[in-house]
Amino acid sequence: MHKVIFDTDPGIDDAMALLFLHHHPDVELVGITTVFGNGTIEETTRNALYLKEAWGIAAPVARGAAAPIDPARTRGTPPRIVHGDNALGNFPLPDRIAAQPDPRPAHHFIIDAVRADPGNVSIVAVGRMTNLALAIAEAPDIASKVRQVVLMGGAFAVPGNVSPVAEANIMGDPEAADIVMTAPWKLAVIGLDVTMRTVMTRSHLAELARRGGERVQFLSSISQHYFDFYSRFLEDGMAVHDSCACAYLVAPGLFTMRSGPIRVVASGIADGQTIQKPDGRRFPPNAWDGKPSQLACIDIDAEGVLDLIGDTLVGVPSDLAKAV
Amino acid sequence: MHKVIFDTDPGIDDAMALLFLHHHPDVELVGITTVFGNGTIEETTRNALYLKEAWGIAAPVARGAAAPIDPARTRGTPPRIVHGDNALGNFPLPDRIAAQPDPRPAHHFIIDAVRADPGNVSIVAVGRMTNLALAIAEAPDIASKVRQVVLMGGAFAVPGNVSPVAEANIMGDPEAADIVMTAPWKLAVIGLDVTMRTVMTRSHLAELARRGGERVQFLSSISQHYFDFYSRFLEDGMAVHDSCACAYLVAPGLFTMRSGPIRVVASGIADGQTIQKPDGRRFPPNAWDGKPSQLACIDIDAEGVLDLIGDTLVGVPSDLAKAV
Repeated sequence: MHKVIFDTDPGIDDAMALLFLHHHPDVELVGITTVFGNGTIEETTRNALYLKEAWGIAAPVARGAAAPIDPARTRGTPPRIVHGDNALGNFPLPDRIAAQPDPRPAHHFIIDAVRADPGNVSIVAVGRMTNLALAIAEAPDIASKVRQVVLMGGAFAVPGNVSPVAEANIMGDPEAADIVMTAPWKLAVIGLDVTMRTVMTRSHLAELARRGGERVQFLSSISQHYFDFYSRFLEDGMAVHDSCACAYLVAPGLFTMRSGPIRVVASGIADGQTIQKPDGRRFPPNAWDGKPSQLACIDIDAEGVLDLIGDTLVGVPSDLAKAV
Repeated sequence: MHKVIFDTDPGIDDAMALLFLHHHPDVELVGITTVFGNGTIEETTRNALYLKEAWGIAAPVARGAAAPIDPARTRGTPPRIVHGDNALGNFPLPDRIAAQPDPRPAHHFIIDAVRADPGNVSIVAVGRMTNLALAIAEAPDIASKVRQVVLMGGAFAVPGNVSPVAEANIMGDPEAADIVMTAPWKLAVIGLDVTMRTVMTRSHLAELARRGGERVQFLSSISQHYFDFYSRFLEDGMAVHDSCACAYLVAPGLFTMRSGPIRVVASGIADGQTIQKPDGRRFPPNAWDGKPSQLACIDIDAEGVLDLIGDTLVGVPSDLAKAV
């Protein structure tokens, strides 16, 4: 059983990943923490609360960072062209949502939840890594108490998506990402190297929507905007970035990982780039020396991951499965 | 026919590349320019003069840069572990070499040679790019007069060899490399992505030495030091980095190239990294905008290139072939 804090900026593919976690029988969601990124922090928090309410998710939602940790960085403009004007593909949302956020800021929620159940809580983070950086900076003890951290972000041997080397989650807060990558916790990074190859076609999602009922129909509705965006890059379909990180948590055998310290460039033309020094490779003294080895994903069984995602989305909700 | 200036820091694999150019029937060497790198400028110039004399190369040798263009950079220590204490694998060299260098510094030699035969002279550069940067800075007109520039250097989708992202020729003078990569001349970059996969085994070189006579036996002798170094990384053999760039000049069909502007990082933890923005990929405004598209090598027919190198090394010297 995986107890999971899902750190997210919903976000269209975030919504799919959340439903994956909610439905997967081996996952217990213990919290949803929000961060700016695909929308403003107001939007991503509202969207998380909406999804919690619509899908009957018991886990609390804690509102997180509104901007990068370095005040010299701007928070940027949400990518409306990717996730729509409300960050959920322009799907009409209710004016009022009954669910209320947890009173704690996201990083305090993370610290409390990890300390409350040492060794058992995993964090899957699929947005800017600001909340995680704030948490580990304030409470370094959680590094040894968290079960593992799984990140969606970065690009190792492929071009980025917001610069020739930078992926959006990293570029949105490079200083935070470097803190998170170099912290002494068990960490796995699922980046564009594999998520851009894990593409759900329009017809696949339509078929899942037919089989999966209202929730998956909702995912299908909000994803039309995302499909339109991806039609610039892909023949057909959308990259299911955030769900890949969730799939790694429950099925790591579908992923090929490379071990070595990871640093994030936080200046100059390579700003926002993730760079791993593979273990066993020797170089003159450098910025990776003394940093803990982490896992970067270099290959994926994309078909296996897409099958897992599909089966989980249309499956019996995990809370019902447990009640049986 | 390719008229070629060979900019080089001999260097063990440089010597093989020089013999390749000297022997190839479609190449006319018009000059050898030296640069610091595999040895000091005194050593690499002496070695170039020695090879000119030993092999009867008519082309003049012009001595080039002794240090990077940015005075804040150090010239570093020559990699004795790779190329030996005299940069030719500790092969005993004569105390006195009769051949004398051209009176001009290398970058003036380059400018004069390109201007003297506009549209016909190619430059193959396999060391630090300092001489080329000095030449293009002083004489921007040569950009349109040179036939093409072929570089050995950089690492695009693979780790570097002197840092997790940097290759030695680039790291030795990143500011020069960025000037050279962004100049408006026709340029192709052959980097570690393919040269580390183009490996000549000990037995292959030994067989070439048997067939190729004294010159190739000399290459085999100096390469033993290089083989020993590569035994840390490769099961058997040596990467023939510099000869790959020469092979591209005469047989580009053996190489797969990707087009797009190339920049070099010149600060921070990614110092010395080569980054290409592939043509057709769109990003927010960035440092690649407005720079000319160049060719980066992303795949190679390694077997074909090794065959070409072997056949050329053991073949009839080009000056004899022309005399026949």
